[in-house]
Amino acid sequence: MNPFRFHNPTVLYYGAGQIESYLAEEVKKYGRKVLLLYGGGSIKRFGLYDKVTGILREAGCQVFELSGVEPNPRLTTVHKGVDLCKREGVELVLAVGGGSVLDAGKAIAAGAKYDGDMWNFYLRKDRVQAALPLGTILTLAATGSEMNGNTVVTNWETKEKLGMGSPHLYPRFSFCDPANTLTVPRDQTVYGIVDIMSHVFENYFSTAPNTPLQERMAEGLLLTIMETAPRLVERLDDLEARETIMYCGTMALNGMISMGTAGDWATHAIEHAISAVYDIPHGGGLAIVFPRWMEYVAGEAEGKLAQLAVRVFGVDPAGKSQRDTALEGVRRLREFLRSIGAPGSLADYGIGDENIALMAEKAVQFGPIGRIRKLEKDDVEQILRACLK
Amino acid sequence: MNPFRFHNPTVLYYGAGQIESYLAEEVKKYGRKVLLLYGGGSIKRFGLYDKVTGILREAGCQVFELSGVEPNPRLTTVHKGVDLCKREGVELVLAVGGGSVLDAGKAIAAGAKYDGDMWNFYLRKDRVQAALPLGTILTLAATGSEMNGNTVVTNWETKEKLGMGSPHLYPRFSFCDPANTLTVPRDQTVYGIVDIMSHVFENYFSTAPNTPLQERMAEGLLLTIMETAPRLVERLDDLEARETIMYCGTMALNGMISMGTAGDWATHAIEHAISAVYDIPHGGGLAIVFPRWMEYVAGEAEGKLAQLAVRVFGVDPAGKSQRDTALEGVRRLREFLRSIGAPGSLADYGIGDENIALMAEKAVQFGPIGRIRKLEKDDVEQILRACLK
Repeated sequence: MNPFRFHNPTVLYYGAGQIESYLAEEVKKYGRKVLLLYGGGSIKRFGLYDKVTGILREAGCQVFELSGVEPNPRLTTVHKGVDLCKREGVELVLAVGGGSVLDAGKAIAAGAKYDGDMWNFYLRKDRVQAALPLGTILTLAATGSEMNGNTVVTNWETKEKLGMGSPHLYPRFSFCDPANTLTVPRDQTVYGIVDIMSHVFENYFSTAPNTPLQERMAEGLLLTIMETAPRLVERLDDLEARETIMYCGTMALNGMISMGTAGDWATHAIEHAISAVYDIPHGGGLAIVFPRWMEYVAGEAEGKLAQLAVRVFGVDPAGKSQRDTALEGVRRLREFLRSIGAPGSLADYGIGDENIALMAEKAVQFGPIGRIRKLEKDDVEQILRACLK
Repeated sequence: MNPFRFHNPTVLYYGAGQIESYLAEEVKKYGRKVLLLYGGGSIKRFGLYDKVTGILREAGCQVFELSGVEPNPRLTTVHKGVDLCKREGVELVLAVGGGSVLDAGKAIAAGAKYDGDMWNFYLRKDRVQAALPLGTILTLAATGSEMNGNTVVTNWETKEKLGMGSPHLYPRFSFCDPANTLTVPRDQTVYGIVDIMSHVFENYFSTAPNTPLQERMAEGLLLTIMETAPRLVERLDDLEARETIMYCGTMALNGMISMGTAGDWATHAIEHAISAVYDIPHGGGLAIVFPRWMEYVAGEAEGKLAQLAVRVFGVDPAGKSQRDTALEGVRRLREFLRSIGAPGSLADYGIGDENIALMAEKAVQFGPIGRIRKLEKDDVEQILRACLK
């Protein structure tokens, strides 16, 4: 293990009835002026909006609303939120939605306590020193944003999709009720599952020495997801499957499986470059890139890939070279992703080779990416070409 | 899963060099008047005492010392610490040692902010409302006390060994450097390993529905411990093995594998009764009681025991009844415990049947114990009889 410091201060509420019992109490710890942030309005259709605003009203809160946060949340929307918080003296940002809404909430919370343009944080020109308190109510299992300090925002003008993290951006509290994910459509459900698996992979492909428990826990996550996902895709209103996937999403990126590790994260950088240019769903892009990344780095990651193949994908290593075992695992991963309906290539999104160089450029804009193998622009181009069909 | 609230605020530092880099900074957040609490003085022999007091001195702290905390920490020692804190206006308790020292530190921290006798908390006569800040430096992998709010103390006059937990008793910070466990003798090392495994078992044998990920993570812990322990017992100065076991200890009881579960914990209650009467090591008692408890509740826990047998103990279920698979797993657990040198029966401690009724009485003093099967005094007597040889 690498030496590490771990601190995850989020108060996590899971299950039915928690919002009714504890939301008012949590909100009142931070103030009465609340920015209620949400997306396209699905929370109105299934009643969550009424429930939450009712509780806030009863708690004596003054509620300011900002809706329409996009699936890849946009800088312009964040700027609106920052202005609103500064103008109205907002005391708590309450983000109700999926990872995009939560990530926008973090960006707004950081921007509201900053004199410059909060985009500086994403450009690595400045660091978050303070932020408004943030609370979340999760409606989509995917990003793990409900229990970490990470945020990803897209600047559509410059076609940059960038992430950053800060200890100041952990939600103070998060409410996760799987019932609030029951109406998520099939595609988004699948993208969420892929996103969760990809977080496990990014942590699993670590260069730190001696991390057997972290690996076992990552494998436990993957096994659980792969047992549960087919059942959920089959029956989208399976509440137990929704619960399991939601919990896997939280545990995949709250730091529990990455203490003392040094994850790779090249695949995320490549996917961000793709969806900055084409605005495709993050999970869709990850399903395409991850198997190709694994194949590209198979030389460097052979042992770990073979372990994954045996422990998670049930590959029998008898009579196989380590490399063949490793690659058979990747083949089964592709098969699994196809079986739950994830996209298989960029062609599925009508994306050709026109912008390969531009995307590769963006992926390495802060320097080479990845730890298992340091990828330069040329490496990323080769991976992207492999993604075409 | 059961609905749950999770909040673990401990700042965790792992690895070499962290004490030197961050201890002063952490201590100064809470004040300058520090109670330094430790055990039998082994921390002086291997240099940790000098390192810590040097850092505290340089940080301008006024240090009060209380040493001699016992392996099953005693109420009389805790009372001394409480008196000292109240008299001197101590601002931070810094516990340097194993779980016993940490647990005594928690008891002292709670008692220092309480007008009555802090033993009331253990007797369930009152609840902790406030506590002094507590920091820890861990020197023995076992109890997980470095990242939870639990404490166990023994009242030697009444022969009661009782535990309690409070959100106020989480360490504010904990430093875990496996190098500080290198000199732990073989017996204590083994007891620690058994204690860690028993925490995983207590969580694993849960009655909550739909906890596949929690089970996989628990199994990952057990697999990791069982891979590592034989290597460590073979070579006590294997730093990587020390690191893995230390990390397993923290993760086994910091709440990560028990979110939404309802663990059994009868075995701990039974062991506490044994060591309240005989003052045997906690881990030694657990190694004796756990397999017998499993056999006693095999009817109720058959499915979970069989899953454990297959996934962790490598039992091939083909051609076996579920019950046979389950019991074969328990047999292999006994075999594993014997192989690392854990005691096999109460006879190993020279304990006969003289105090069976007394111990059973103590185990159920607050009512029936356990969730998989509610155990009354008579059940506990039967389990204790099975432990005799």
